[in-house]
Amino acid sequence: MIVYGRNPVREAIRGPREVSAVWATEHAAREPWLAGVPVRSASPVELERLAGSPDHQGVCAEVSEYAYSDADELLEPEDAVVAALDQVQDPRNLGAICRVAECAGASGVVIGERRAAQVTPAVCRASAGAVEHLRVARVRNLADWLATAKRSDAWVYGAAVAPEAVRYDAPDYSGRVVIVFGAEGRGLRPRVASTCDQLVSIPLRGRIESLNVSAAAAVLMYEILHSSRRVDKGT
Amino acid sequence: MIVYGRNPVREAIRGPREVSAVWATEHAAREPWLAGVPVRSASPVELERLAGSPDHQGVCAEVSEYAYSDADELLEPEDAVVAALDQVQDPRNLGAICRVAECAGASGVVIGERRAAQVTPAVCRASAGAVEHLRVARVRNLADWLATAKRSDAWVYGAAVAPEAVRYDAPDYSGRVVIVFGAEGRGLRPRVASTCDQLVSIPLRGRIESLNVSAAAAVLMYEILHSSRRVDKGT
Repeated sequence: MIVYGRNPVREAIRGPREVSAVWATEHAAREPWLAGVPVRSASPVELERLAGSPDHQGVCAEVSEYAYSDADELLEPEDAVVAALDQVQDPRNLGAICRVAECAGASGVVIGERRAAQVTPAVCRASAGAVEHLRVARVRNLADWLATAKRSDAWVYGAAVAPEAVRYDAPDYSGRVVIVFGAEGRGLRPRVASTCDQLVSIPLRGRIESLNVSAAAAVLMYEILHSSRRVDKGT
Repeated sequence: MIVYGRNPVREAIRGPREVSAVWATEHAAREPWLAGVPVRSASPVELERLAGSPDHQGVCAEVSEYAYSDADELLEPEDAVVAALDQVQDPRNLGAICRVAECAGASGVVIGERRAAQVTPAVCRASAGAVEHLRVARVRNLADWLATAKRSDAWVYGAAVAPEAVRYDAPDYSGRVVIVFGAEGRGLRPRVASTCDQLVSIPLRGRIESLNVSAAAAVLMYEILHSSRRVDKGT
């Protein structure tokens, strides 16, 4: 797999993947984080061909395939917080959610195998390389996995605009938590929503109808991981 | 100005701008929110030429120029919360911040006149049309305007990763608040940072170095506008 862009290549070098080659323009090759890394010289046109995208910022790298994690292992810590995505298909949204999950200190992100964005180079780019340090797991059927998670003592929350939802800052988010986000426009599928223990909603005080899913993920993951309630409990 | 995309055109129709023409593909013209709107038929190729972007989702509209607000007026309410952007140049980030500001219930967004993204059609698109209902003001010099805001009794916070910053959920955000965000990668310029009453930081618990500026804006604006502390005070 060819990853491209400054942050994605830098984090791939720092992370667990094998990096077999790095190409850069003369200018980009002088970045301090590339010191000591064998770099092959390439023109912007060659980089665009290698990366399959003009969005390479002068550098790309050949790396081993992305190693997905096991979804159940993400829930092992007693205070695990996992974001689960229900058919989020936009690579930019998946990348942005992974970046926020990594920054907030989530245990990982769970995605479906089908009708969902996977960890492609565009997602690496949109995540600013966060996927190199974050565990991402794939499951065959998200609702089935959520049911398993509940049996493992996780409390499953779904982000939704729904009459039965409580305000996002009302729950006591202690212990193992899974928070599920739906695709923009469509929200959670009914079976996924009905598997959740509790739906939570973020107040919308303006006239437009929804937050972007990655903005919602930022608000909720920081609420869950950094709310004083959780901190007070020493987790 | 030609705005394009479903949400941007829909919100332009609902908002205060004059809409002088709407073009849509046959398929898009059947969207329920276009019922009763005179629509000219256009092919995807014609729409791309009109919009200057392939990202038109089958619909675009000619609208009057964007009407910027007066920055000082944004601070009139006693509980005003204003986001100020220090040289944010990426239209997608400006759009995403405007969307979050509109959803969270901010009084408006202040941007600089120079070296900063303005409210272009790409920003309308990235904001999902939120700019039609949100007040956006331009100022000649951001640090000067922040100094004025302080004289108007606003407390000015700057989002920054800095040793002197306090945790984002520590301040009592009552009263008039301005929260300043810097450009991704560069952060706040020194004179802007030194004009702030207080720097606040969002904890980063992973290995990557920063949140996207729109994710930081989501976390901070919801903390400021919806934290129980502010609600407790009845503002």
